Amino acid sequence: MKLARFGPPGHERPGLVDDAGHLRDLSAVIPDLTPDRLSRPELARLAALDPASLPLVEGPVRLGLPVTGTRQFVAIGLNYSDHAAEAGMAVPAEPIVFTKAVSCLQGPNDDVRRPRNSTKMDWEVELAVVIGERASYVTPEDAPDHIAGYAVCDDLSERAFQLERLGTWDKGKGCDTFGPVGPWLVTADEVGDPQNLAMWLDVNGQRMQSGHTGTMIFDCATLVSYVSQFMVLLPGDIITTGTPPGVGMGRKPPVFLKEGDVIELGIEKLGSQRHKVIGWNEQATH
Amino acid sequence: MKLARFGPPGHERPGLVDDAGHLRDLSAVIPDLTPDRLSRPELARLAALDPASLPLVEGPVRLGLPVTGTRQFVAIGLNYSDHAAEAGMAVPAEPIVFTKAVSCLQGPNDDVRRPRNSTKMDWEVELAVVIGERASYVTPEDAPDHIAGYAVCDDLSERAFQLERLGTWDKGKGCDTFGPVGPWLVTADEVGDPQNLAMWLDVNGQRMQSGHTGTMIFDCATLVSYVSQFMVLLPGDIITTGTPPGVGMGRKPPVFLKEGDVIELGIEKLGSQRHKVIGWNEQATH
Repeated sequence: MKLARFGPPGHERPGLVDDAGHLRDLSAVIPDLTPDRLSRPELARLAALDPASLPLVEGPVRLGLPVTGTRQFVAIGLNYSDHAAEAGMAVPAEPIVFTKAVSCLQGPNDDVRRPRNSTKMDWEVELAVVIGERASYVTPEDAPDHIAGYAVCDDLSERAFQLERLGTWDKGKGCDTFGPVGPWLVTADEVGDPQNLAMWLDVNGQRMQSGHTGTMIFDCATLVSYVSQFMVLLPGDIITTGTPPGVGMGRKPPVFLKEGDVIELGIEKLGSQRHKVIGWNEQATH
Repeated sequence: MKLARFGPPGHERPGLVDDAGHLRDLSAVIPDLTPDRLSRPELARLAALDPASLPLVEGPVRLGLPVTGTRQFVAIGLNYSDHAAEAGMAVPAEPIVFTKAVSCLQGPNDDVRRPRNSTKMDWEVELAVVIGERASYVTPEDAPDHIAGYAVCDDLSERAFQLERLGTWDKGKGCDTFGPVGPWLVTADEVGDPQNLAMWLDVNGQRMQSGHTGTMIFDCATLVSYVSQFMVLLPGDIITTGTPPGVGMGRKPPVFLKEGDVIELGIEKLGSQRHKVIGWNEQATH
């Protein structure tokens, strides 16, 4: 099942994509796609609906975040060995965990902002795990029971803020608009094996990243289990699981994003995003 | 004005502490103390009430978090020069920023849990800033307009998770129950100068930390301004501003928390907390 939210920012309605790829309006069934709608029984209730019975959403619409109300946005660093190499860092012995501000979350195709004083804005296509049920001290074997589904995430980064401003990476990871997620939340049953998905990212039509989730160092179930040893994961929380090679920082010479650039990215079975880079104080289009 | 929330976990009601120190029930005025209640006009509306007109809350009650719905829990590291010295780290040239999981937030007097596999659980009395209005790229001069008030925070830490498990400090800062905040949110007007407050922390009745917010390296307004250059701060967000000397890690030999220990801490004008350490899987009392 593919779940989505559509409409203007702050006024999104819940929807579901039918087998023919048409968006259907779920707002007569549930008020919104909130964390409490992501448990197995709640998802089963939506999966039991006949999509043809739901109103068709006409015309082009903006897509928002597929889930609203996310409380924690956790990210994993250096989780593809080739990316660790291009970043000039060692393959980690255990997962690197950092945090993206939840205030950077936004729809998949909304403009993204180059932060004030930014010099090294970069892209990262990533598989995001969406938590369905509370997870604390879960084993890798039990972790899939706590996963509602998966989505595409662009883990936008400002490398100078991340690496040259002391302390943790968090300064360069949670800037306004740095967390586009979507287009959909694809439920775990429909994704099947999350470690068997091709992924790609283009900037201005040029292929920059080509990867495959099969080359992750730590797989999704291991990551959910691992993070749950250090914090309580809540329904609606997002763990974005690291990026394959091909980021701007790793190119020779490095390439960073500038106003007007267009980023497109996608993951097999999970759909694609397209967003344009604008200035920190420009008016966004959606 | 001192705002608080009282009642069993998950069923707290909003309240206000009158000049005589009595807790008054605000639930006929507002449904809860949520982020949207922290703007200047909303706080002014509460300040205009006659506390004597509000029902007195009888008997001993549990206090919850003074604000519910916090979306971001940001923390500042090494913000007191003496603490940097005891941690064996350099005084930072700009603020060290890390993140505590919002799922660790809890009432000021609830039991705190020693995490599974913890060997180095430690305490940190801190002044927490509570954001009242959205802050993005604000100047230090304008930052106070975005602050609703202040509260005591125990920035509980697991030093082995924080410092010996790779990557950021976040693994040792957001464990379940590691964020007691309260007893009250004291509004900025009542606090006056936030850089003129004495602070203390005892473990089992022995004074461990004695400090003063006047010795912060970066003051509260500077910190709000600084963090707002890297992320959008939202109403209800909490920035905990670092700890003075006297943590367990800095003692010779180091002292870490164990089940049964009792931590008491407080800050001038902001009240005090008292919590007991229990095992990760023990039943908590409130």
